[in-house]
Amino acid sequence: MSTLHDHAATIMRRSDELAAFTTVEGQITRPYGTSALLDARDQLAAWMGEADMSTHVDNVGNLFGRYEADTQSIDPKTFLVGGHFDSVVDAGRYDGTLGILTGIAVVQHLNETGRRFPFAIEVAAFADEEGNRFHTSFLGSSPVAGLWDPAWVTLEDDAGTPLKEAIRALGGDPEAIGSDTIDSGSVLGFIEVHIEQGPVLQDRNLPVAAVSSITGSLRATIEFAGMAGHAGTVPMALRRDALAGAAELVLAVEAVGASETDLVATVGTLECSPGASNVIPGHAHLTLDLRHPDSTIRERAYAGVRAQAEAIAERRSLDLDWTDSPSFAETVCDARLTKTLREAIAGEGIEPLSLFSGAGHDAITMANICPVTMLFVRCRDGISHNPAESIDEVDVEAALRVLERFLFAVAGQR
Amino acid sequence: MSTLHDHAATIMRRSDELAAFTTVEGQITRPYGTSALLDARDQLAAWMGEADMSTHVDNVGNLFGRYEADTQSIDPKTFLVGGHFDSVVDAGRYDGTLGILTGIAVVQHLNETGRRFPFAIEVAAFADEEGNRFHTSFLGSSPVAGLWDPAWVTLEDDAGTPLKEAIRALGGDPEAIGSDTIDSGSVLGFIEVHIEQGPVLQDRNLPVAAVSSITGSLRATIEFAGMAGHAGTVPMALRRDALAGAAELVLAVEAVGASETDLVATVGTLECSPGASNVIPGHAHLTLDLRHPDSTIRERAYAGVRAQAEAIAERRSLDLDWTDSPSFAETVCDARLTKTLREAIAGEGIEPLSLFSGAGHDAITMANICPVTMLFVRCRDGISHNPAESIDEVDVEAALRVLERFLFAVAGQR
Repeated sequence: MSTLHDHAATIMRRSDELAAFTTVEGQITRPYGTSALLDARDQLAAWMGEADMSTHVDNVGNLFGRYEADTQSIDPKTFLVGGHFDSVVDAGRYDGTLGILTGIAVVQHLNETGRRFPFAIEVAAFADEEGNRFHTSFLGSSPVAGLWDPAWVTLEDDAGTPLKEAIRALGGDPEAIGSDTIDSGSVLGFIEVHIEQGPVLQDRNLPVAAVSSITGSLRATIEFAGMAGHAGTVPMALRRDALAGAAELVLAVEAVGASETDLVATVGTLECSPGASNVIPGHAHLTLDLRHPDSTIRERAYAGVRAQAEAIAERRSLDLDWTDSPSFAETVCDARLTKTLREAIAGEGIEPLSLFSGAGHDAITMANICPVTMLFVRCRDGISHNPAESIDEVDVEAALRVLERFLFAVAGQR
Repeated sequence: MSTLHDHAATIMRRSDELAAFTTVEGQITRPYGTSALLDARDQLAAWMGEADMSTHVDNVGNLFGRYEADTQSIDPKTFLVGGHFDSVVDAGRYDGTLGILTGIAVVQHLNETGRRFPFAIEVAAFADEEGNRFHTSFLGSSPVAGLWDPAWVTLEDDAGTPLKEAIRALGGDPEAIGSDTIDSGSVLGFIEVHIEQGPVLQDRNLPVAAVSSITGSLRATIEFAGMAGHAGTVPMALRRDALAGAAELVLAVEAVGASETDLVATVGTLECSPGASNVIPGHAHLTLDLRHPDSTIRERAYAGVRAQAEAIAERRSLDLDWTDSPSFAETVCDARLTKTLREAIAGEGIEPLSLFSGAGHDAITMANICPVTMLFVRCRDGISHNPAESIDEVDVEAALRVLERFLFAVAGQR
């Protein structure tokens, strides 16, 4: 029989094993619908089996491992514990998978100690949260939470491969995805254990913290159009250089992001054309991603960036094309579940801090069908979406203890 | 018999006819080694034939039309008049071809009026000046001027097609190109009539001007490396955003370019990675192209940009990788030829202005074997390398009159 201490070591090892499932040698790159993703899912299912869970896969490709309720319970409900097993390009090894592996480990420990609850536990392994391949958000958890958009089946990846084909590669039926929604009456709640992806826990010297809310984001795609021209012959004063306008906006976005506590503002992509060293760029395309947990501050900052883009375009005689992209309102975690989680943290002798999440998570969609909360785990230097992503085994053990204590507390409340 | 007035109209019509030779429907895109280029060459050869020129093609694919000297001359030398007939992607219709068409027109007019000189005139039609396909400079005129680099035969285009194959597609022998150099003792000079590609003649309300020099350029490729990270979770103060550093440099380059008369400085390409809207860019790549006719000013400005790049990297904790790219020294046009050209301009009742060229031209290579000069023709709004490239027929007529008067003057000096 293993202790939670042993299980923490297992999780570190399993994180390394999952990291080997990649489409790009030497990286961790595991997009939706690839054979690397399928192989990772098979591995997760095998580990679920070892923990005495029955497994099933839904049409979008999510994997669920079910640990049944105690036999006295009639028509028991389900508590979901989970994460995602797709990754961004050149990712770290803990983002997403930690929620699945901690779920499996706690179930295995419960099974080893002969404990069952008056509800089933299902470990949900979502097949696509990052959305890197089809430029979606929460592709995996959306159908589960009743938020599947039928129009998505017409999506294609950058290589022109239809989403339908990716769905079928995972064994699903694109037409049946809409029927995979979990009945909200059957679900007690959802919790995800996730690396913090920020530096606060390291700064505060704490292993874990509860998440009180997930920040909202406002996003835009922005195009400046000027006039392409010969880099040797058009005098500086006569130029309408789209890239120079875009560069001004990049710096304006950075300044806006720094203007308020907890605000972050990012230009993640910038492309210019024609794109030759001896031609003045006539077009520049960039994206804005702006986040703050408070919608008032978020919207004011967004309007500020837009006003600056308009001023830049005006001053430089550029045409501006500003397109609002899909945005997300903040998701407030369930007060009662989060209070229970904070009590579990305190029960392990850890200061019960609450953080907001700056990143989006499947809890956003899952909140559509059930109460949600999250447990953050300290990660080194706040680095994530990067091969340097790193966590400590001792913090994973703390997370396991808190998660198990939390589930006992939820069971005690019933 | 046609007048030069008639020939100007012919040139306008022929420019339109050449524009139809393109690899991309709806554009003028005529790279080296394509069937569009071959068809354009056949058309030019036909027009040379109409002007009583004998034609030949060299191994790199250049076309030469020879109008013989008067019969009294023993072992006559040659005066070269020319331009190029390849184009950039989505080009205008006058860049390069105007030098060939004005040469053919003046020879035809001389032939119609029964005039020959104590030297032969050869109209040189260079097969590649822009270098768009194989990322070369002056591929056509280099072997003519003894500047062929044998290593070039190993070049490939972006699709992996070897230069050798493109050479053979034009009927040349890749191994024999090095032997196509014209004996410098046989050449009296080279003149190219070219659109200005800048706004000065329009501003000064002049149809043509002599070119005193071709500007030199300094170029670099620059990379900033920071740290990729999650756009939602890394606080602004902890970021090492490579794109933000690059944006600062884009604006610094623009400011340096504006700091001196006749200086131009351009960032024509900028790419950042990983390149997702929700990831802080960890890398940014950009190019610098900086030109001024005076090497002292050019080098001082270049050093200034580099110092700013270093300061940006230092301040933002970015790594900077600065690579000098091949640069070009300025080419000073031959003083005596250019004086003769200015006198020809004045002889036509036009203020004899001298300009420098901000763009590179085959005169740079041709200066290796003979005295060179150029005649610029006004173009609308300075627009070039663009479908909107536009010139007036009346200015073409002025260029023809100046070019013919110039050749008479050269003949009179012998």
